[in-house]
Amino acid sequence: MQHLVATAQAMADAARAVILPKFRSSALATDNKQQGGFDPVTEADRAAERAMRDVLARERPHDSILGEEYGTRDGTSGLTWVLDPIDGTRAFICGTPTWGVLIAVADATGPILGVVDQPYIGERFIGGLGQAAWTGAHGGGTLRTSGVTRLDQARLFTTFPEVGTPEDRAAFERVAAQAKLTRYGLDCYAYALLSIGHVDLVIEAGLNAYDIQGPIGIIEAAGGIVTDWEGGPVHNGGRAVAAATESLHQEALAALKG
Amino acid sequence: MQHLVATAQAMADAARAVILPKFRSSALATDNKQQGGFDPVTEADRAAERAMRDVLARERPHDSILGEEYGTRDGTSGLTWVLDPIDGTRAFICGTPTWGVLIAVADATGPILGVVDQPYIGERFIGGLGQAAWTGAHGGGTLRTSGVTRLDQARLFTTFPEVGTPEDRAAFERVAAQAKLTRYGLDCYAYALLSIGHVDLVIEAGLNAYDIQGPIGIIEAAGGIVTDWEGGPVHNGGRAVAAATESLHQEALAALKG
Repeated sequence: MQHLVATAQAMADAARAVILPKFRSSALATDNKQQGGFDPVTEADRAAERAMRDVLARERPHDSILGEEYGTRDGTSGLTWVLDPIDGTRAFICGTPTWGVLIAVADATGPILGVVDQPYIGERFIGGLGQAAWTGAHGGGTLRTSGVTRLDQARLFTTFPEVGTPEDRAAFERVAAQAKLTRYGLDCYAYALLSIGHVDLVIEAGLNAYDIQGPIGIIEAAGGIVTDWEGGPVHNGGRAVAAATESLHQEALAALKG
Repeated sequence: MQHLVATAQAMADAARAVILPKFRSSALATDNKQQGGFDPVTEADRAAERAMRDVLARERPHDSILGEEYGTRDGTSGLTWVLDPIDGTRAFICGTPTWGVLIAVADATGPILGVVDQPYIGERFIGGLGQAAWTGAHGGGTLRTSGVTRLDQARLFTTFPEVGTPEDRAAFERVAAQAKLTRYGLDCYAYALLSIGHVDLVIEAGLNAYDIQGPIGIIEAAGGIVTDWEGGPVHNGGRAVAAATESLHQEALAALKG
């Protein structure tokens, strides 16, 4: 187990080293201008996934891999590494340090370890397999959700106001109407803030497995709950609701249902 | 002039020292839970403005002050310091490092110096009186807007999807429909990203003088343009449009007008 944790840390270090020099680079700005449309897949995204796969090839050659950029590699160990080298590529392209490197290790039941890393701010959140800690430039601490139990006391986040389909948006707005405060735009960083008790509820739709498994790892280690909008498992993607406490989670599910 | 710049730097340092220990503190979380409603005015906000006013009392006793928390002090020099100790108190309360300390020096024509400081990330943007620079944990550089001239190539930001009145929102959505990319939620940090060329357009409504004068200082020093939605001065507050270039600004004004 400690080898899994050490490998995840090494992968996050490797991704950080590759991505950070490309964040806010003038080359990135130039590439964007030359594109006809908007393509959030950057060179940094692909290079970081290659760097993480290099660590796995050395340290965990028998594990499976599911990565956003380079797809699936089948292994024999029963464990799968689930990788999103840059979650929040639109934030990345706008210079906003709320994107993150997402890493998870899953067995047949779902994620058993999750990492969310923000290289520019210099923060890393790691949960599962006995870990529940974050580190940053101004210190760090133990992952622990806020203890907020009521929707009318909850700080709610989602990335886009549209959330998902028009029906998804209407369901989200039923929750937002009851929440203390609703904010937008943080991508994976909202889940990180939930894991340290400063955000109470995150609701999103249209997620892939690699968008949510890292966050599930840290939020469960912090004492929070992450499910789909019906209360079932969400580690394979879909519509996620992540809550600080069980009763807040139940209130959110009820409001989503309408 | 160098004394004005040095004073602004000293004020930003003083505010940073006061605010940073209170950001993400457990005391802040407790206070929020005890409140019946949501009050974004925190102890940090007030203490930081007092710290900045202490610097001014020592260094610039004859200048006027307009501060968010403690109002107006009349001076005799013809210069006014315009202060928002924590712009983005809701971001602050959610642990999101996109709030900022805003400082401006204005004469009768508007701001002649602006500072946007983000203490947690450790970034400071300063523009005017010969300054056009930013510093951060991973380096810094010269303030310079992106050069994007067309709305369909623009990265657009605003803080809340509602923007202002229903009419304001409809006007904003006409711009968003033409922009390359629309994001939400950054408060003053979006103006800082505009001043270094990673965001191209910021549109907001319902601003006070102290919300916008610091941003005006850095964006004008970076080569950008900030006006109200009709193209007139906005340093006394209202509805602001900040653009990387003159032609992008003109396109945005036309779309807002509808």
